[in-house]
Amino acid sequence: MRSFEVKNRTSADDIKSLRLVTAIKTPYLPDGRFDLEAYDALVNRQIENGADGVIVGGTTGEGQLMSWDEHIMLIGHTVNCFGGSIKVIGNTGSNSTREAIHASEQGFAVGMHAALHINPYYGKTSIEGMISHFNCVLSMGPTIIYNVPPRTGQDIPPRVIQTVAQNANLAGVKECVGNDRVVQYTREGIVVWSGNDDQCHDARWNHGATGVISVTSNLVPGLMRELMFEGKNSSLNAKLLPLMDWLFSEPNPIGLNTALAQLGVVRPVFRLPYVPLPKAKREEFVNLVKQIGREHFVGVKDVQVLEDDDFILVSRY
Amino acid sequence: MRSFEVKNRTSADDIKSLRLVTAIKTPYLPDGRFDLEAYDALVNRQIENGADGVIVGGTTGEGQLMSWDEHIMLIGHTVNCFGGSIKVIGNTGSNSTREAIHASEQGFAVGMHAALHINPYYGKTSIEGMISHFNCVLSMGPTIIYNVPPRTGQDIPPRVIQTVAQNANLAGVKECVGNDRVVQYTREGIVVWSGNDDQCHDARWNHGATGVISVTSNLVPGLMRELMFEGKNSSLNAKLLPLMDWLFSEPNPIGLNTALAQLGVVRPVFRLPYVPLPKAKREEFVNLVKQIGREHFVGVKDVQVLEDDDFILVSRY
Amino acid sequence: MRSFEVKNRTSADDIKSLRLVTAIKTPYLPDGRFDLEAYDALVNRQIENGADGVIVGGTTGEGQLMSWDEHIMLIGHTVNCFGGSIKVIGNTGSNSTREAIHASEQGFAVGMHAALHINPYYGKTSIEGMISHFNCVLSMGPTIIYNVPPRTGQDIPPRVIQTVAQNANLAGVKECVGNDRVVQYTREGIVVWSGNDDQCHDARWNHGATGVISVTSNLVPGLMRELMFEGKNSSLNAKLLPLMDWLFSEPNPIGLNTALAQLGVVRPVFRLPYVPLPKAKREEFVNLVKQIGREHFVGVKDVQVLEDDDFILVSRY
Amino acid sequence: MRSFEVKNRTSADDIKSLRLVTAIKTPYLPDGRFDLEAYDALVNRQIENGADGVIVGGTTGEGQLMSWDEHIMLIGHTVNCFGGSIKVIGNTGSNSTREAIHASEQGFAVGMHAALHINPYYGKTSIEGMISHFNCVLSMGPTIIYNVPPRTGQDIPPRVIQTVAQNANLAGVKECVGNDRVVQYTREGIVVWSGNDDQCHDARWNHGATGVISVTSNLVPGLMRELMFEGKNSSLNAKLLPLMDWLFSEPNPIGLNTALAQLGVVRPVFRLPYVPLPKAKREEFVNLVKQIGREHFVGVKDVQVLEDDDFILVSRY
Repeated sequence: MRSFEVKNRTSADDIKSLRLVTAIKTPYLPDGRFDLEAYDALVNRQIENGADGVIVGGTTGEGQLMSWDEHIMLIGHTVNCFGGSIKVIGNTGSNSTREAIHASEQGFAVGMHAALHINPYYGKTSIEGMISHFNCVLSMGPTIIYNVPPRTGQDIPPRVIQTVAQNANLAGVKECVGNDRVVQYTREGIVVWSGNDDQCHDARWNHGATGVISVTSNLVPGLMRELMFEGKNSSLNAKLLPLMDWLFSEPNPIGLNTALAQLGVVRPVFRLPYVPLPKAKREEFVNLVKQIGREHFVGVKDVQVLEDDDFILVSRY
Repeated sequence: MRSFEVKNRTSADDIKSLRLVTAIKTPYLPDGRFDLEAYDALVNRQIENGADGVIVGGTTGEGQLMSWDEHIMLIGHTVNCFGGSIKVIGNTGSNSTREAIHASEQGFAVGMHAALHINPYYGKTSIEGMISHFNCVLSMGPTIIYNVPPRTGQDIPPRVIQTVAQNANLAGVKECVGNDRVVQYTREGIVVWSGNDDQCHDARWNHGATGVISVTSNLVPGLMRELMFEGKNSSLNAKLLPLMDWLFSEPNPIGLNTALAQLGVVRPVFRLPYVPLPKAKREEFVNLVKQIGREHFVGVKDVQVLEDDDFILVSRY
Repeated sequence: MRSFEVKNRTSADDIKSLRLVTAIKTPYLPDGRFDLEAYDALVNRQIENGADGVIVGGTTGEGQLMSWDEHIMLIGHTVNCFGGSIKVIGNTGSNSTREAIHASEQGFAVGMHAALHINPYYGKTSIEGMISHFNCVLSMGPTIIYNVPPRTGQDIPPRVIQTVAQNANLAGVKECVGNDRVVQYTREGIVVWSGNDDQCHDARWNHGATGVISVTSNLVPGLMRELMFEGKNSSLNAKLLPLMDWLFSEPNPIGLNTALAQLGVVRPVFRLPYVPLPKAKREEFVNLVKQIGREHFVGVKDVQVLEDDDFILVSRY
Repeated sequence: MRSFEVKNRTSADDIKSLRLVTAIKTPYLPDGRFDLEAYDALVNRQIENGADGVIVGGTTGEGQLMSWDEHIMLIGHTVNCFGGSIKVIGNTGSNSTREAIHASEQGFAVGMHAALHINPYYGKTSIEGMISHFNCVLSMGPTIIYNVPPRTGQDIPPRVIQTVAQNANLAGVKECVGNDRVVQYTREGIVVWSGNDDQCHDARWNHGATGVISVTSNLVPGLMRELMFEGKNSSLNAKLLPLMDWLFSEPNPIGLNTALAQLGVVRPVFRLPYVPLPKAKREEFVNLVKQIGREHFVGVKDVQVLEDDDFILVSRY
């Protein structure tokens, strides 16, 4: 069903060269709807600081908490406003093949440049089932496959990737298993993005990864750009590791959501089941900002420690 | 929730000057999904022939047979591929205020330039209810209100329009009640588009209408452009009237769907409850094409009389 | 897809004998969700006062303002709690054939005894299209077809009914065109329910109608029972006519919603685009209750005139 | 929003005493829709063989591949047809709190006796987030919490259960972590059902579990009844273990789906991403049936080895 209009003609090769892709945060209004103004500002910061692409509605962007119409709308919005400046990769994956097909058709129809696909988490399936699942969506357009066993409960083994890599639409793999797996794929000519911020420097400079699909770059896009583009830089990497550790002290995007609220760039609104980090961790963040330098973080307001009462948790939206 | 990005900054004034807006047909694949390739070709013919805008998912485009996610996707697709060349007006109206609000938010988020809003058909409401309904959506962006009592069962009386016209987002009215009503509004400074192809020439040149929101222009965009832009032309109008009569011999878009299939520009696929015109009427169309001239119609294939078996009617999709 | 379990085996004949069917009101909580406690009380009053059936999510019950999942849930709830005491007829009609099919499958799956189907309003279609539309759903179970041109913009002509009556699942017609049409159908052996409260006495006792699908019975179920079961009673009919006139002074269910709120049996919550009747009409209602007798109306609280501020109008829910 | 009608008054205590609950298979028609006739037959076999309850749309029933309206419909259908004979527990859990709330409201509204709730899989959350998530739904009615880290990627630690157990609606826990955890909970007075068929005998007879929520009972309900109700029976347990091993040789419900198709009680239709077990495993199943005895399995047809071509895999439905 894909349109042939020129705006839809991104190729897998265009995607393969992306080095810094940000899994962009979705900010909310107090009633839980999307805060598009805040979102636009976040995307603009990514563009200004040199990110090549954004993942829309990834796990970081809380695609798992969106209805599909919200999700596709956000992809369409991002393409419309920013598609000329940055690659827009829609997380149209699902543990339901039907949903993955439908969402991917719609995402490509509204102009996303590539799809991110996960293996069927929670419900899981066999190796043959995984391959069938990915083959149902690969024909639609450029595709990145995402492997994150701590979330899905099931590793995508290399033979699945090797099989589906026969389809020219496979742009590559977002791999969270570690740098041994990164090496294995890159030796086989399969493009890899590290899915672990704390490993991405080594993945890129020592193990052949093309780049990173990053959470941390929501906060410090310029530094992550430097880390991915300017050559080995162990001292910068070391400087960022405490921030990365902090970010992942609870399941992502809990840390990121807390951080962006304290930086004053998003309203302190959480869609449940996410809740803010506790106060002690919120105080730690302010110290991390000071250590790294406020000027490297997005936003211009002073970073502050929010109180419990400052946060709005929404369950119906 | 509207984004402030430059691509979303169309004003009501930008909409007020549109003269030829086509209520574009939605073509289907044999399984009932959208045929985006055929759709893109139809939109390109409108752009080439000088239409100023398209209504996406109007009654002509069978918005009433779309799920909302299909509908918003089609708006987003049209904006993405063609929004730089033609104004994209999404029919995000509904007889449910909740749906009209949600769809309009989403439509503006994916970049539509204006919304088309209907009064609550079928369920109907009081005058106060109508005003409340329109006021819920007018704040979101440029809006055209659509009055078509033979479909809705209820006229939008002028005092409703006069009341909501206090909102600067009201671009104008698509009016099907007739040219007396057109005159009344244009004298009051309210922009009107004729919603009746057979009255649009007189509406434009004798009664102050700005233009037309047209069904016929799906077939003969160049001639409709001439009719709306090149001054009074009673002979051209008279030449087109038999085609218009034919198009509306059954509820629109039955005639249009049949015609476009016979012109070879869309697959002969109907979503129920629409079914093709009977064979005698299909033969009439071929004669109408010959009288007006094949070269004025969209597409390049010979017009043909389709057989009953050529049509595919889909009920689940 | 219909199950054969005994609970799903209602036949069209079981439906044909219903004489007083109430198009039941859907009450809301202040946030716009269904108020099931109030709903249950309303249905219990119908059962106690001798109604034979309820239409769930009709135009009176504001099916047009429900999402389909709400709609099917309400049908399932009604069947579960009350299906042993009263026939549950789900309004699973739509102007989209796809939606009508899907909703009817689901409604029968959750146990509704019959479906109510409307012709495609707003979008409209040809006679052949109407017949195709109804034939898509008639195979699923007992069906009542609803003809109300002032809402749909299009009469269902007798030849459509005569054609679809060949399907044994057609239980009959809810007819709002008037008693001449009622006579025509009953002479042909087609079961008819009057869809106009103010005509139902004559329809039943003079023109062969089986009964009524009533709005007024939401308020005075016992009196409507008497009107339909106890023989001609012109004085009772005359006594009720002012109430009926009042109820339909604005499009239904505006009057009914206002009345039930003032009777204290539902919260004064309106889903837009419905708004309460103005104060003068609200005062009239209190007088009508006094004239007819409070004891004939549902509820036990004193009837009161609500103030404008007492009403909650919800647009997002 | 819960109704107070008597049919909705199941208490947590009613649920706590269930000993054999079957996570019932959802069978499909060749186009992927539910096969309600086959489903009804499966549920009737459970009732006849003494199961106390069914989980509707669990991971075994492929709730993860259902749209929510399908899911609620199936719950409503099961309640309507079988709710008087067996407890109906709807899997209205989700990794999205919003969805879990909405589905649980709807499930209770259509009469389910209890809800099954999972912690937020895939997206995951903090301990505080988990507690907030469960607290959002516990007020609605009797609830079983389901802990299955190999699917969710995250254990529900005892302190979460201990916290939410303060709500009287917590009926208990379906626990897959193992019998040490079972012991811990039962000592604290928390009801536990084993979620692992191969451990359930010991869980029940040695470790204090109330019973099992079983996959295997879809195949041999009578034997599982015996295992749970008739006292320690190591030889029966040993006899069933090879079947259980076979069933879980690939992620459930792949084995179950394959088995039921070969027993001739469901059509051999798979919704992707599930695909049948390979032929060698299908042959093994026939041998297992012979060893255990065909008469203990559901259905009356001869068990057969299906060929690859016999299976229908559906991706759009």
